[in-house]
Amino acid sequence: MSHLQAIRVGLLGFGVVGSGTWNVLRRNSNEIARRAGRRIEIVRIATRTISKATNVVGDSVPVTSDLMEVVRDPSIDIVVELIGGTNLAKDIVIEALKNGKHVVTANKALLAHHGNEIFKIASENKVMVAFEAAVAGGIPIIKSVREGLTANRIQSVAGIINGTSNFILSEMREKGLAFEEVLKEAQRLGYAEADPTFDIEGVDVAHKLSILASIAFGVPIQFDRVFSEGITQIEQEDVVQAERLGYRLKLLGIATRRENGIELRVHPTLIPNSKMLANVNGAMNAVMVRGDAVGETLFYGPGAGSEPTASAVVADIVDVTRLHTADPEHRVPHLAFQPDALEDYKILPIEEAQTGYYLRMTVKDQKGVLADVSRIFADHGISINSMIQDNKGNNLASLVFLIHQTIEASMQRAIQQIEALDSVQNAVKLIRLETLE
Amino acid sequence: MSHLQAIRVGLLGFGVVGSGTWNVLRRNSNEIARRAGRRIEIVRIATRTISKATNVVGDSVPVTSDLMEVVRDPSIDIVVELIGGTNLAKDIVIEALKNGKHVVTANKALLAHHGNEIFKIASENKVMVAFEAAVAGGIPIIKSVREGLTANRIQSVAGIINGTSNFILSEMREKGLAFEEVLKEAQRLGYAEADPTFDIEGVDVAHKLSILASIAFGVPIQFDRVFSEGITQIEQEDVVQAERLGYRLKLLGIATRRENGIELRVHPTLIPNSKMLANVNGAMNAVMVRGDAVGETLFYGPGAGSEPTASAVVADIVDVTRLHTADPEHRVPHLAFQPDALEDYKILPIEEAQTGYYLRMTVKDQKGVLADVSRIFADHGISINSMIQDNKGNNLASLVFLIHQTIEASMQRAIQQIEALDSVQNAVKLIRLETLE
Repeated sequence: MSHLQAIRVGLLGFGVVGSGTWNVLRRNSNEIARRAGRRIEIVRIATRTISKATNVVGDSVPVTSDLMEVVRDPSIDIVVELIGGTNLAKDIVIEALKNGKHVVTANKALLAHHGNEIFKIASENKVMVAFEAAVAGGIPIIKSVREGLTANRIQSVAGIINGTSNFILSEMREKGLAFEEVLKEAQRLGYAEADPTFDIEGVDVAHKLSILASIAFGVPIQFDRVFSEGITQIEQEDVVQAERLGYRLKLLGIATRRENGIELRVHPTLIPNSKMLANVNGAMNAVMVRGDAVGETLFYGPGAGSEPTASAVVADIVDVTRLHTADPEHRVPHLAFQPDALEDYKILPIEEAQTGYYLRMTVKDQKGVLADVSRIFADHGISINSMIQDNKGNNLASLVFLIHQTIEASMQRAIQQIEALDSVQNAVKLIRLETLE
Repeated sequence: MSHLQAIRVGLLGFGVVGSGTWNVLRRNSNEIARRAGRRIEIVRIATRTISKATNVVGDSVPVTSDLMEVVRDPSIDIVVELIGGTNLAKDIVIEALKNGKHVVTANKALLAHHGNEIFKIASENKVMVAFEAAVAGGIPIIKSVREGLTANRIQSVAGIINGTSNFILSEMREKGLAFEEVLKEAQRLGYAEADPTFDIEGVDVAHKLSILASIAFGVPIQFDRVFSEGITQIEQEDVVQAERLGYRLKLLGIATRRENGIELRVHPTLIPNSKMLANVNGAMNAVMVRGDAVGETLFYGPGAGSEPTASAVVADIVDVTRLHTADPEHRVPHLAFQPDALEDYKILPIEEAQTGYYLRMTVKDQKGVLADVSRIFADHGISINSMIQDNKGNNLASLVFLIHQTIEASMQRAIQQIEALDSVQNAVKLIRLETLE
């Protein structure tokens, strides 16, 4: 292995993941070289806060604040983009590709918005863009779907792929606390950012789901077609009722192949508590993938954090190292399918989605209410799986229904009629439900 | 993608996995070609029972009973070995390699016994041997460890990698039945073979563990150094006591890196029922991998069966298809580490293993017994985690101890002394325990 030159890496960004990448490459350099067949060296670093980097790397590697300088350095083989964001990162990555550099990135927002364009430019320049760290942190889910399950017609992907929201839902269940309380605790512990919008509103999950769906089904990345609903409306009572019925509440990213198109949706979901996904707690991530040959598979691990994410970044560097001088024909296509073999399946609007439901409503505790509600379900061809009625005092009762898989549009029409009943107080709370079978 | 010639595959064996491979390649041929960039065609089949194959494939492909004929066919690029066994399979695989064919195999026994030699011959002939299907069926665990976790110094691998034994243990727990009853049921259902020795005595797990350990730690395959104990001695009472203490009984293959070497052991194991591995039920498989950068990961799916195993076989064919004309330097090393970078870490004997324990003993229900037993533990520096005492009638009591991690040799010496006590009836039942932390 000694006859091969070291691979020269330029590192952009020295935050949580950047410093983790530096540390892992340093600490495990021998182990990694034994696998890769050559040494991997970070030869330049660019970051806004130079002192933060030099405090760690000393004068062993030059550190600059000029990203473009690194991207255009002719001695560099691989650029690792860990600065985040979509504007500057896009310019930088494209410039790197045009300069003949391979790019490794952890930037899901960048790929969700500009991935199709970036992969096209990479192909034109005969270089690779590797992005294992962009989805589910340290879990090698991109590689598993893209290379490990190539025999399959993938039927569905369902993932817990945002650690912050999973931490919040886990804490709500375990400690019986309200959403706002747990969010504050998460922020204090560093599990949630000061502005948690992307995490708790499902945007981050939608970014990752759009990438996963593309490599699962062979479609272009279509972030703007993902239906997305966050966890801010989840109440403690919903968590408790779900448990009582044998289900657990998780924020899932779901991509499902249907006869007439593909569903792409992010929302809080009741899942049976016997499923592996239901047992993914705290900030951990997991992705369930169902293929027609393999059946059900699941990939579990830490979805964020310094070294777990660096683990994926470095694995990508090793992959690129192996293939960087190979004919592009020998490489795995960026989106799993050959670029000329991507198909434009229809992405179904949420109204056409087929899923189960949990409905909770407060009604007047009087005769005939259950009959009225049941008749509305029947009129729309909606089938009830189970029901719980609780007396709430003040002549009010709480009704919780679990509804078998039905078309979302029918469900929405039924809810409109139910809410119009005199006996029904307030709005009907709707949470979707998946059996994952 | 149309300019590339179809890859020509010779299929050896047309049993459960062979026919599954045929079916998957047929049914998903378009999907697979969209990924691989070229078509994959089975052009010849060799099997003992020609009629069984021709019933399925008709006259679309020539079927022979002469394996060597296929292996030497100059028009064939990839030989898929699914005949099983170690003698004939070895000759056939080596002949294929010497004829310049790449080989895809699902044969764990072959690799456990002859893998080092086979990979050497493959390298000399500049061809690949792919074996994803040899461990954990449809789960892409070889790829995940070998390519997805290359950044890590792997610390441990712990897997439920035999579906038959996991099915039996799951049924014992869920239905409260004895081992022998469940084994018979498993045989009736086809989950266990007429001669179940390899599955229930841990031999099959040991085969797979020796392969996993090699790619995790960068050591040669060393099947003969694996300590192996099966599940035939597990009694219903152990299953119940384990549950009562918050643990579940699983047959695990465990490979752990220690300062002075590597532990390779297969045995029934108590694991905390909150762990993901504890929730792997029926014939499903899962492998937990812990790396210094990524932390805890887990890979779950069906470990056997026609199409799940075919899923792994076909994924290997696609991998080989991509790289079959590439410079060997561009390929992933067979055992994850470069052949000249394998190390000869010591494989520790079971006496040096460090693990927790579950001990169950029947004692006379009289004063001083617990004190005697506890003193023996203390004398050997053994620390008790928890204890349950049950009155069994007839002046007898059952004692169950959970013991913190200790050296196996100390534990064995303590048990000898305990068994020598007058008050202790019969032998002490020992089952190992892992917290998996």
